[in-house]
Amino acid sequence: MAELQNAKGVRDFLPEEMILRQRIINELKSIFELYGYAPLETPAIERLDVLTSKFAGGEEILKEIFKVEDQGGRGLGLRYDLTVPMCKVVGMNPNLNMPFKRYQVQEVYRDGPIKLGRYRSFIQCDIDVVGTRSMLAEAEILSIVETFFSKYFKFVIKINNRKLLNGLLDYCNIKKNKMAAVLSIDKLEKIGSNGVKKELKEKDFSEKEIRELLKVFEIKGANKELLDKLEKIIDNEEGKEGIKELKELIEYSSLMGVKNIIIDISLARGLEYYTGPVFEVFLKNSEIKSSLAGGGRYDKMISGFLGSGDYPATGISFGIEPIFEALKLEKKLQEKRTVTKVFIIPIKTLKESIKITKSLRDENIKTEIDLMERGISKNLNYANSMGIPYVIFIGEKELKEKKVKLRDMKTGKEEMLDLKDTVLKITSKV
Amino acid sequence: MAELQNAKGVRDFLPEEMILRQRIINELKSIFELYGYAPLETPAIERLDVLTSKFAGGEEILKEIFKVEDQGGRGLGLRYDLTVPMCKVVGMNPNLNMPFKRYQVQEVYRDGPIKLGRYRSFIQCDIDVVGTRSMLAEAEILSIVETFFSKYFKFVIKINNRKLLNGLLDYCNIKKNKMAAVLSIDKLEKIGSNGVKKELKEKDFSEKEIRELLKVFEIKGANKELLDKLEKIIDNEEGKEGIKELKELIEYSSLMGVKNIIIDISLARGLEYYTGPVFEVFLKNSEIKSSLAGGGRYDKMISGFLGSGDYPATGISFGIEPIFEALKLEKKLQEKRTVTKVFIIPIKTLKESIKITKSLRDENIKTEIDLMERGISKNLNYANSMGIPYVIFIGEKELKEKKVKLRDMKTGKEEMLDLKDTVLKITSKV
Repeated sequence: MAELQNAKGVRDFLPEEMILRQRIINELKSIFELYGYAPLETPAIERLDVLTSKFAGGEEILKEIFKVEDQGGRGLGLRYDLTVPMCKVVGMNPNLNMPFKRYQVQEVYRDGPIKLGRYRSFIQCDIDVVGTRSMLAEAEILSIVETFFSKYFKFVIKINNRKLLNGLLDYCNIKKNKMAAVLSIDKLEKIGSNGVKKELKEKDFSEKEIRELLKVFEIKGANKELLDKLEKIIDNEEGKEGIKELKELIEYSSLMGVKNIIIDISLARGLEYYTGPVFEVFLKNSEIKSSLAGGGRYDKMISGFLGSGDYPATGISFGIEPIFEALKLEKKLQEKRTVTKVFIIPIKTLKESIKITKSLRDENIKTEIDLMERGISKNLNYANSMGIPYVIFIGEKELKEKKVKLRDMKTGKEEMLDLKDTVLKITSKV
Repeated sequence: MAELQNAKGVRDFLPEEMILRQRIINELKSIFELYGYAPLETPAIERLDVLTSKFAGGEEILKEIFKVEDQGGRGLGLRYDLTVPMCKVVGMNPNLNMPFKRYQVQEVYRDGPIKLGRYRSFIQCDIDVVGTRSMLAEAEILSIVETFFSKYFKFVIKINNRKLLNGLLDYCNIKKNKMAAVLSIDKLEKIGSNGVKKELKEKDFSEKEIRELLKVFEIKGANKELLDKLEKIIDNEEGKEGIKELKELIEYSSLMGVKNIIIDISLARGLEYYTGPVFEVFLKNSEIKSSLAGGGRYDKMISGFLGSGDYPATGISFGIEPIFEALKLEKKLQEKRTVTKVFIIPIKTLKESIKITKSLRDENIKTEIDLMERGISKNLNYANSMGIPYVIFIGEKELKEKKVKLRDMKTGKEEMLDLKDTVLKITSKV
């Protein structure tokens, strides 16, 4: 056949990657479930009219839809996110109990440019709560973030509130082009105040407006101090509501044990649909500057998408790809080529070795037995190159003594042990 | 927006389905890992030239490929099975250690007719071993089958061997059209000997050939007895080799504790690429007559696909959809709308209730707290309709006594318990 290759921008995940990926994803799922989130899955193939509905994530993304051609000539495409499918599910299932707390971990597909770390198919890992306006929902999300990230990283959760952002723009008398201003302010940390000044100028904001904006958005302080300062200057309802929400969120989060929250009033997150708290997770002292998770409240998007109803909602997306990159970079997890704990080498004792293999599996020990009828040294090479921690030799001498010879592949140490002690030895050092 | 609906033949899986699906799939993955199988994932989008390579599963399936259109106008499609992608991975990774034992649980897509229980997108769950000719590989597969199915069902594993089938055809002097004969014989149980006779006639087999075939393929007997009978008549090498393989497979399987094997010499499995043992799992005394898992040895397919190399291989595919159907039909698993074990209703005690929620989660108990600020009866309705087993009320009285009121939602019984006893109570009855 022709040269074997993958389509552009997609990847195979061999065991050494998959074992880690699956482990991290399972850890996340366990944490989500601890908070009562339940799993949802939606099809990869959706109708184009659903995917291209106007509330579905902006113009740019629509250009990147992979079209799917079926025999019936229907307009179909591959999902590019998990938010649109969730809105669809809410719309198609009017009897869903509220709050609807769902997690969804599935691949999405985008026919976009391929850059370093950008693929055409990647896992999204989202949790969302639909049906409540309570800041408790956000606090639980931040608590989930804290639980997961504190296992591996030093990190901060930056939070802000779109109502506060709007209030601050009002305070600065910015009436038009609010989103444009917000998007420039969002870059304050990245490009500095001079950079933001330049951008705002290009966007036709006046000298006075720019001065006001920078004066306000450069107000600093620890969370409580910062909110106190802002409270003194904010004179409009929306801004006040934003501050109230942030205070509640910080109080609830703290009761849930969340420690790494920092209010950053310039944080905006690009998408227009956010209506309340927004949050993003960054590593401390890391080469990775992009966020590892991000989300926020979007109280109007679902009803906008559906054209009716009242579905306040909030959620977060965990960036599985940058999380893996960070785990690899910081060497927090060691890649393994196998899940196997022990490899059995029969030396003219096949039948008895099969029985011993069964006994170990019955003890829940991941066990392989030589399937290739190879000699001892080839089998040892295999176990070694796969990174299997233990090898068991079973020869006639071992059978006579009712023992096995267990070799610790790391130290090279070998011991004659009965089955019970073998199990203890292997399971104690997992 | 337009009427919300799914593309034809695809489904959303809401929590009540997903919780079960995920549980079963995780059980399967755990068993696979116990035998040293490691996870592999390949992209949904593949190049059409890879998908349509001639060794890839027959003509029929190629018509059902969903074509994918990208901006670059490349020839792309969605995977329709997991075997072709695995062959591709073997070809693209010449340094894979052998044996390569991989499991793969991913969706596949087929633009075929939609019937009851037939979808355009469904999970395939495959395990395969590449690199060994040993019947131990098959024995492990049958042991995995036995481990999983005996948890839920009464079942049989029917096995046969393609070499034996060929040997029996040789014995009957069938020289041409062997595959056509095999495919009719395969239906012996379904359509009876008269049905098979009729089919063979239509396929232009002679009266003598048909008589010979039916005489041989109606030889019956328990496994050992049957093999003994066949051994006496089979006079060709291929048939003898098939019998030898079956004997080995039965011996190894039995040493691994597999009890439900029945040799069925008419079992063929449709695909042409099988070269050795084939196996299929059926339920006993069930409405579901189709197989729940099936596979076999294909020693020539991968090297055929790659155009070089020697890659003996064997594997099995678990039919996730029929397994779910069977579990539902036999009511082996109860659908649940939530993973949550306990729902907390604060009665003017929000802050303390948040802390208690945290304590329960710290004890690994899946806990929800009211996010809607609803009254007691609405919250009880919610917990009830979601099927949450326990509710905790926390009012001022409870706080004063340093207890909570735990309600068992099944019995309606309420108790005042301190936190430690609450944890014990909830976790003891999982």
